[in-house]
Amino acid sequence: MRLSHLLGPELKQALREDPEQVRALLDEIHPEDLSDLVSELEPEDAAELMSRLPAETAAPIFERMEEHEQEELVSLMPPESVAHIASEMEADDRADLFNLLDEDRGDEIFRRLERVDPEAALEVREIEKWPETSAGHLVTTRYVQVPPEATLGDAITAVRELLEEDDDPIYFIYLVSEGDHLVGAVSIRSLVRYDDRSMPLSKLTIANLMSVPPDVDQEEVARQMSKYDLSEMPVIDATGKMLGIITVDDIIDVLTQEQSEDVQKLGAVEPLDVPYFHTSIVDFVKKRGFWLIVLFFGEFFTQTALRHYDPVFAMLQGATYYVPLLISAGGNSGSQSSTLIIRGLAVGDIKPRDWYRVLGRELLMGILLGGILGVIGFLRVLMLDRDQGVGFALTIGLTLVGIVVTGCTVGSLLPIALKRVGLDPATSSTPFIASLVDVLGIIIFVQSARFVLGTLFGQPGLP
Amino acid sequence: MRLSHLLGPELKQALREDPEQVRALLDEIHPEDLSDLVSELEPEDAAELMSRLPAETAAPIFERMEEHEQEELVSLMPPESVAHIASEMEADDRADLFNLLDEDRGDEIFRRLERVDPEAALEVREIEKWPETSAGHLVTTRYVQVPPEATLGDAITAVRELLEEDDDPIYFIYLVSEGDHLVGAVSIRSLVRYDDRSMPLSKLTIANLMSVPPDVDQEEVARQMSKYDLSEMPVIDATGKMLGIITVDDIIDVLTQEQSEDVQKLGAVEPLDVPYFHTSIVDFVKKRGFWLIVLFFGEFFTQTALRHYDPVFAMLQGATYYVPLLISAGGNSGSQSSTLIIRGLAVGDIKPRDWYRVLGRELLMGILLGGILGVIGFLRVLMLDRDQGVGFALTIGLTLVGIVVTGCTVGSLLPIALKRVGLDPATSSTPFIASLVDVLGIIIFVQSARFVLGTLFGQPGLP
Repeated sequence: MRLSHLLGPELKQALREDPEQVRALLDEIHPEDLSDLVSELEPEDAAELMSRLPAETAAPIFERMEEHEQEELVSLMPPESVAHIASEMEADDRADLFNLLDEDRGDEIFRRLERVDPEAALEVREIEKWPETSAGHLVTTRYVQVPPEATLGDAITAVRELLEEDDDPIYFIYLVSEGDHLVGAVSIRSLVRYDDRSMPLSKLTIANLMSVPPDVDQEEVARQMSKYDLSEMPVIDATGKMLGIITVDDIIDVLTQEQSEDVQKLGAVEPLDVPYFHTSIVDFVKKRGFWLIVLFFGEFFTQTALRHYDPVFAMLQGATYYVPLLISAGGNSGSQSSTLIIRGLAVGDIKPRDWYRVLGRELLMGILLGGILGVIGFLRVLMLDRDQGVGFALTIGLTLVGIVVTGCTVGSLLPIALKRVGLDPATSSTPFIASLVDVLGIIIFVQSARFVLGTLFGQPGLP
Repeated sequence: MRLSHLLGPELKQALREDPEQVRALLDEIHPEDLSDLVSELEPEDAAELMSRLPAETAAPIFERMEEHEQEELVSLMPPESVAHIASEMEADDRADLFNLLDEDRGDEIFRRLERVDPEAALEVREIEKWPETSAGHLVTTRYVQVPPEATLGDAITAVRELLEEDDDPIYFIYLVSEGDHLVGAVSIRSLVRYDDRSMPLSKLTIANLMSVPPDVDQEEVARQMSKYDLSEMPVIDATGKMLGIITVDDIIDVLTQEQSEDVQKLGAVEPLDVPYFHTSIVDFVKKRGFWLIVLFFGEFFTQTALRHYDPVFAMLQGATYYVPLLISAGGNSGSQSSTLIIRGLAVGDIKPRDWYRVLGRELLMGILLGGILGVIGFLRVLMLDRDQGVGFALTIGLTLVGIVVTGCTVGSLLPIALKRVGLDPATSSTPFIASLVDVLGIIIFVQSARFVLGTLFGQPGLP
């Protein structure tokens, strides 16, 4: 039985009879849990509930819902209700909402928002100026601001005013001069620390106040805030104007979202916009099909290469049966190198300028790992495929060394090269590296055979 | 020129002449930046600097350094200095340090710590009880604690006492009864909000105070704290005793670390303990070699399968040249499915009980994606390899459908199966799925040929 069957009718009735009591009840529950509950309702019931709740109660629930849920709800709610809820949402979540809606619906709600809360509408326009994954898009305008000459007492008054609106966390009080110039910040614990209310706040400002411009990428903000353990980061535009702050909870969301994208790219899937079960089959076919087809065309070259070397393979009976084994070793070692480097670049352990150090290490690693596989491969041919002879076993061993060295170097340098030209290193996905190394592997196999069997063993007739 | 050449001698001289002045200077710089600077020094200089600095200045620098840097420094510093620094470190970082040191060295320093600060030593023993990736290992004991009957004024006094020690953030004041039982928490903004110092704190406690037991996994704590936007999470043991709090900055580190491990596992590398450039070649050979060898043995079966079907391939001239192309399509689609499912499981979008829904979607996706590749493959044979005929082209097409369906189902169900039996889904790495599907792909190819060429086209003599 769905929760909606239990909760739906009673809730609707209670909302009609005594909305204040429902509100008091809901205030006891964390908005995050309420948003989970509302998600479980039938969409129509959820839309009715959200429309009937006071906007300041509905907003924290609504802004915690998944984007696809918000989209569905908005389509079922009166635009007036949505505008009221939007006016109570955090500025960044509000901008994300309008970003999500189709133009007609978005315009209709926006016009109403402009009447209900012109300032909130203006903030949306401000935020929309910046790229979707930039610091400007994470800005909230809910923070305590006082003039630079304010006293401790002034700051306490300002904090209380904001807490009248809602009881959300406050970590800093910002000293802002005319023209919205940020001149300092005082932590809220400093207000508790001293008794003298006439003390100038400027005496208490923290050292090393950091800030970011609005156009910096959200990943860079996340890196700085996590490095310096910051709970808030002010955003200042090129003219020195403070646009708002980024809070640490948004940064955690950014880290999780960017990580999902990286993992999906590594698996050769275009990043999903919504969770797995909410992605339509059509979207999946697009997001997976593109890379599958690209990689498939890439793999055509393995057939072309094998056919090209037909005279060689015709001489070496049974050699083609070793091809998948050999080329997969290149793909696997290449996958290892590329994931190590992609992650190292993402967390900042590896810089693109370190490419020659990476190359040195990976060459050495390729020789060692290829050597190990080479010995195993050599022994395997000698023991289980004795008819092929020592020359062939040696060819397999040498091929493995060559292929693993190639896998390690290609797998490590390609992400660095992508980063250098400004592309996302994670695009050099594991399957992509594997495909690239597959074709090279066939060439290395044939060249090794020519060298070992032709040159060393003087086998006649090898083309 | 290395920074140490510029900074080293002057710093050392200044430290000898006027350590207080150096300390005042360093207080201006964020400990995170200082730790970066110290990392740039020659190890011997860094060790001397850390030993000469007052312990309360050195501790925040030291605890921000990488583990391998801490290890090196400790080996160069007098145990007495390390003990003093350890006593000033956060409890969780202190425990991590002892976790890191070899037994002799650790015991020597621990004995000194017991003399310098018996309470800090006891905390290490407390934390060490819990598994390394559990909540208990992230606990800090730096928090404000008052009795349940305390007033607003008592809380302010308690906050001021803690701020005398250091000016680190304080977000909550915890109401703790006898026997260390947590009964409530008040946010620091509530202390600013009200003037009446005689107000009982119990009136201001927040609703929905959450806590975790110490043995819960750190990833679960991170998930809860990010879901509910918490800045702190109290840790309570089975007897109801409060052990300390986990702070949000530790959670961000946990997220980053767990993500690195997931990505490395996806690339078939055993997770690294230290950054790329600090991992020794020997460690790399172990962490990469293990999986490379496992996968290599797995791929032996491709050669075995191909040789097993030798009579079939002998009939189908040129068919073996298509094998890498065909089986790579299975590996690629399997990689896509497995990364999607692994990530979905990690962020909670997919639950193991959803396996039949996943299977349904992936079967459909496999048919669609396999169909697309099948058509491309069919056309490719007809256009570029015309001698092979329509029957062979059809075989390629059908094989691709079968292989992609297999890739999607194996790639999606394996991570779920691993999760079900309590293993990490990320262990079913991309190369692992690819190897598994490679062997299956060869069997599907041969069966398709038998069906299309033998049964449908009645080609004689196909074994």
